[in-house]
Amino acid sequence: MLEELKKKVYEANMLLPKYGLVTFTWGNVSGVSRKDGVFVIKPSGVPYEDLRPEDMVVVDFDGNKVEGEMNPSSDTPTHAYLYKHWESIGGVVHTHSSYATSWAQAGRSIPCYGTTHADYYYGEVPCLRTLSKEEIDEAYEKNTGVLIVDEFARMDKDYNAVPACLCKNHGPFAWGKDPVDAVHSAVVLEEVAKMAYRTEIINPKVAPAPQVLQDKHYYRKHGANAYYGQGK
Amino acid sequence: MLEELKKKVYEANMLLPKYGLVTFTWGNVSGVSRKDGVFVIKPSGVPYEDLRPEDMVVVDFDGNKVEGEMNPSSDTPTHAYLYKHWESIGGVVHTHSSYATSWAQAGRSIPCYGTTHADYYYGEVPCLRTLSKEEIDEAYEKNTGVLIVDEFARMDKDYNAVPACLCKNHGPFAWGKDPVDAVHSAVVLEEVAKMAYRTEIINPKVAPAPQVLQDKHYYRKHGANAYYGQGK
Amino acid sequence: MLEELKKKVYEANMLLPKYGLVTFTWGNVSGVSRKDGVFVIKPSGVPYEDLRPEDMVVVDFDGNKVEGEMNPSSDTPTHAYLYKHWESIGGVVHTHSSYATSWAQAGRSIPCYGTTHADYYYGEVPCLRTLSKEEIDEAYEKNTGVLIVDEFARMDKDYNAVPACLCKNHGPFAWGKDPVDAVHSAVVLEEVAKMAYRTEIINPKVAPAPQVLQDKHYYRKHGANAYYGQGK
Amino acid sequence: MLEELKKKVYEANMLLPKYGLVTFTWGNVSGVSRKDGVFVIKPSGVPYEDLRPEDMVVVDFDGNKVEGEMNPSSDTPTHAYLYKHWESIGGVVHTHSSYATSWAQAGRSIPCYGTTHADYYYGEVPCLRTLSKEEIDEAYEKNTGVLIVDEFARMDKDYNAVPACLCKNHGPFAWGKDPVDAVHSAVVLEEVAKMAYRTEIINPKVAPAPQVLQDKHYYRKHGANAYYGQGK
Repeated sequence: MLEELKKKVYEANMLLPKYGLVTFTWGNVSGVSRKDGVFVIKPSGVPYEDLRPEDMVVVDFDGNKVEGEMNPSSDTPTHAYLYKHWESIGGVVHTHSSYATSWAQAGRSIPCYGTTHADYYYGEVPCLRTLSKEEIDEAYEKNTGVLIVDEFARMDKDYNAVPACLCKNHGPFAWGKDPVDAVHSAVVLEEVAKMAYRTEIINPKVAPAPQVLQDKHYYRKHGANAYYGQGK
Repeated sequence: MLEELKKKVYEANMLLPKYGLVTFTWGNVSGVSRKDGVFVIKPSGVPYEDLRPEDMVVVDFDGNKVEGEMNPSSDTPTHAYLYKHWESIGGVVHTHSSYATSWAQAGRSIPCYGTTHADYYYGEVPCLRTLSKEEIDEAYEKNTGVLIVDEFARMDKDYNAVPACLCKNHGPFAWGKDPVDAVHSAVVLEEVAKMAYRTEIINPKVAPAPQVLQDKHYYRKHGANAYYGQGK
Repeated sequence: MLEELKKKVYEANMLLPKYGLVTFTWGNVSGVSRKDGVFVIKPSGVPYEDLRPEDMVVVDFDGNKVEGEMNPSSDTPTHAYLYKHWESIGGVVHTHSSYATSWAQAGRSIPCYGTTHADYYYGEVPCLRTLSKEEIDEAYEKNTGVLIVDEFARMDKDYNAVPACLCKNHGPFAWGKDPVDAVHSAVVLEEVAKMAYRTEIINPKVAPAPQVLQDKHYYRKHGANAYYGQGK
Repeated sequence: MLEELKKKVYEANMLLPKYGLVTFTWGNVSGVSRKDGVFVIKPSGVPYEDLRPEDMVVVDFDGNKVEGEMNPSSDTPTHAYLYKHWESIGGVVHTHSSYATSWAQAGRSIPCYGTTHADYYYGEVPCLRTLSKEEIDEAYEKNTGVLIVDEFARMDKDYNAVPACLCKNHGPFAWGKDPVDAVHSAVVLEEVAKMAYRTEIINPKVAPAPQVLQDKHYYRKHGANAYYGQGK
């Protein structure tokens, strides 16, 4: 089942080493089939050079395996929870990409210092708190998903306008309308994290970019008045 | 029309990924035909691996499309304004290259700390102010060009001797006698930005290179008494 | 003798340039044959592009050459001492990889700032003291091994749970159940060292990751209750 | 004449882009023929991808061109002076490699923080003062050579034991027994400069490595009692 989606998810996973976002087996991409109520995800702990489309695992929105010979990624319950609660996303990705993970380890949200950031994320990319002992012991991976969904609601952030977050002491999750779009967000996040890091070194007193400039860049690429690209 | 120039501009655009200056579709290069009163520029939002010479768009100096099926780069009005007002330039490039953009985000001009910088830029590479809300709302991309031309005039800087600048919270623009020369400037700018960043970390109290050394290096490569290279 | 092990050790050595851990001839990997009471190691000062499986040198646990035309790595006595005293290791690697060596030069242990670290190392990766003049003069390379074994005992650290250390002003040693596993540890160490470096720059007051999160990640990959990967 | 030396010098020049030490035409390598009283050097301003062995230029120790159609590197008088006064060197290289140049721009000598440095350089790699206006105006490139030779004499440094230096606000020069050995020194210098930079960030109060450890590493690779490599 879902041969085409497995191929897409496989190809999106293979973009992670291509863009230098993963070492060894770190990282995983999934993609959803809304009409089937399932998603397809990378198997756990398999090196990218050995991965094949048919190794992808099919899982439902409660994290139960529906099809596949291998164990799905250990982060599967996080993906499942995001798909279940955020109905407009079609792909999810988790990496330990170096700069984004460093911000996560530092426990800091990434401020919007320029148009590269504003072109993709509306406002800062938030760093979410570490889970409590109870949350970790009870269901670590699922509760990571719960935290992401709850915190975006609490902060009144639109997950379509900020398609990424940092989990404190852990690393980034990113998402998008399909698996490739989710990886795209993960690549941009790493680039934005790298430039924000350098920006603060060059000017320790730097402030975020003016809101009017952030708005200009975000809305020239998104929404009804966008005019970037080859259009509708 | 302008098949040869389209090919040159296409090839100059393809140098951006070659030199590691762009991610995805970020960045654009243009080249001018002074006798035709037009320039050729990359289409908006097209990935470099899909780009073909015939996709290049022909635009006049007021930013009106003259020929081409695709939309020109969203930064086209900036390029147009530079060509219209700076008569000796033949190529313009905009990137989000990592170190130069970090200086732009930090809102700082790049000081001349050594001969690598002095070989190409006479004095610091200036970081220009952010546009005002009015300038952004009225005509963001055109006003970016207006700002660059006005600020170089106000600072009494020769744009031939400093063929690059940083737009605050945005990124670098560079230019040159033709499209390849403009890309050359963008590559040097990134290298100079990287070394200036590291220089200040190694010695937080560092001062710019002595003026006499800057003059020596600039003038051994430029002007009537230059003696670098294989000569005129 | 030991043709298969020589091939494995050769291949593990060739992973060092593949993963960007070495420049020129720096670095060496060895692998043990417990039943023969010997180990196989890279010859000293041979560039990786000239290396062949048959160049590997066979050495006993007191560092005496048993077979081979070339001199073994100058670090051989360190490897020998580790094999002799740590019975469950099967491979040892020494590199001058850039970030790990920078922590060693700085004389600091690498704190556990996140799950990337906790997935592989239980607690900080220790930086051991410089050897004394007497230890250096008497038997530098052997005493490096003595120091590693003694310090892990003194700190009550399990070398299986922390398969790497830093030698002050020198660089990292890493180990594992076989030569490839040892190289794997060296690669992870470099990545962890890089992210810890950046983490402290982003947040100079950062604290290690909560112990409960470190435990969760370490034990989901190690021990009786591990559930990462394709399992036993 | 000197076909073999031209080939060697050509090949040593081509190592500069291979090891990532140069951008565009920056950098140059030369090699000497002591019996002919001349050296062979890269032509000025020629891109590495266009370079051919027959383009190399033959120059005497006073910097006069002896053979060749092209202009020799603009740094030729520096090379000439070094060959004339340092009789045991056989190759010289100049680059703008990023980390070493950053230390030169910062005006700081590179301290010996560890064994990677001590394996190649005995003590710090010195950063020499900027030339005076008079020295620059009179004969910039030659006086760079005069400064290097004079400063090594004044500091009582053995140029064989410290085969590299930094010219303030400019960049590194390195040398060796032949052109490849000189490039080898330039590569090590860049690596050492990178790790020293990171070392100071990780521990701002770091001190140089203990002298006894520096001696141990230097003398296990150099001099009568060396035991590294396949040796005598």
